[in-house]
Amino acid sequence: MGALYLALVHHPVVNRRGEIVASAVTNLDLHDLARMARTYGLPACFVVTPLEDQRALVGELIRHWTEGVGRELHPDRAEALDLLRVESSVEDATRAVEIETGRMPRLWATSARHGTNRLSCRRARARLTRSQRPVLLLFGTAWGLAPDLVRSAEAVLEPIEGKAGYNHLSVRCAAAIFVDRLLGRTDGKHRNR
Amino acid sequence: MGALYLALVHHPVVNRRGEIVASAVTNLDLHDLARMARTYGLPACFVVTPLEDQRALVGELIRHWTEGVGRELHPDRAEALDLLRVESSVEDATRAVEIETGRMPRLWATSARHGTNRLSCRRARARLTRSQRPVLLLFGTAWGLAPDLVRSAEAVLEPIEGKAGYNHLSVRCAAAIFVDRLLGRTDGKHRNR
Repeated sequence: MGALYLALVHHPVVNRRGEIVASAVTNLDLHDLARMARTYGLPACFVVTPLEDQRALVGELIRHWTEGVGRELHPDRAEALDLLRVESSVEDATRAVEIETGRMPRLWATSARHGTNRLSCRRARARLTRSQRPVLLLFGTAWGLAPDLVRSAEAVLEPIEGKAGYNHLSVRCAAAIFVDRLLGRTDGKHRNR
Repeated sequence: MGALYLALVHHPVVNRRGEIVASAVTNLDLHDLARMARTYGLPACFVVTPLEDQRALVGELIRHWTEGVGRELHPDRAEALDLLRVESSVEDATRAVEIETGRMPRLWATSARHGTNRLSCRRARARLTRSQRPVLLLFGTAWGLAPDLVRSAEAVLEPIEGKAGYNHLSVRCAAAIFVDRLLGRTDGKHRNR
């Protein structure tokens, strides 16, 4: 089974007009993704931003919850935030996974948009299970991952199917659903799909 | 197929010491649950709080996004927040579903704790599909739904299984995973579980 790493990408992402931007970090995103990573036993969740002041802010937030009094008062939360790692770029996060696991990770992107050759969660789950190669799963903030980044990925996961084509989930909810589809168990055994 | 209604409960819930409290409404919870409800085609998501000022605040937030300029600038968000309804109690939310559907809803609770006779999502999904009776699915804020409320439910859904017993998901992520397990489709067909 390959290890699943998450990356919450703040650059390169697009804004509502499709322009490439660096989005601001949202405090709750970090807590939600860290708690989810810990619940599903993931090794790490990368917070990717090239903005130095944002990286400093995230570092401060992590220290607040994982050191000293913060850790003592909320040990559960500390265990989750221990999994957050700040990196400047997707390349740096990729390299960090390679150093940690000794293997180049597969890069999988997520998108709310349909397209050709999307990878279903069922097949993605099978690939994860069959292979020892780690996967770095990218989630975009703002209006989603930049098209070039999506194209550079080995695979793009099928969007979460809604009703009547509406698909405007928060990145927090979308990430939770994807990870549950890829790794979740129900009734004490792996899902049959 | 019975309609699935959600309720985000701010009272009665417990705090970290197990005392019954009314929690404060979190802005992002409302956005995330509304967007999720809209994505999965749910008829409504109730925001339950007995505190008058909190109900007024939620009403203001809904109006901000669903009327006038707010609606014009963010029509997608308006479509989602249209689904939020404020009620003073779980009883009032239950009555609202009964009036709307002509049937008394089943009350299902969620809990991060294990217990006897938990309903698996697979069986819950089958029940929803087989019956015309609506379901009101309760999510607790703070440290979870009050024990008496959980006991009063027809069923309690099995907690989301993590690794090594860690289960501290945010209510936003937990709700997304439960709704996806109950109603989500992958590969264009219902899941086989």
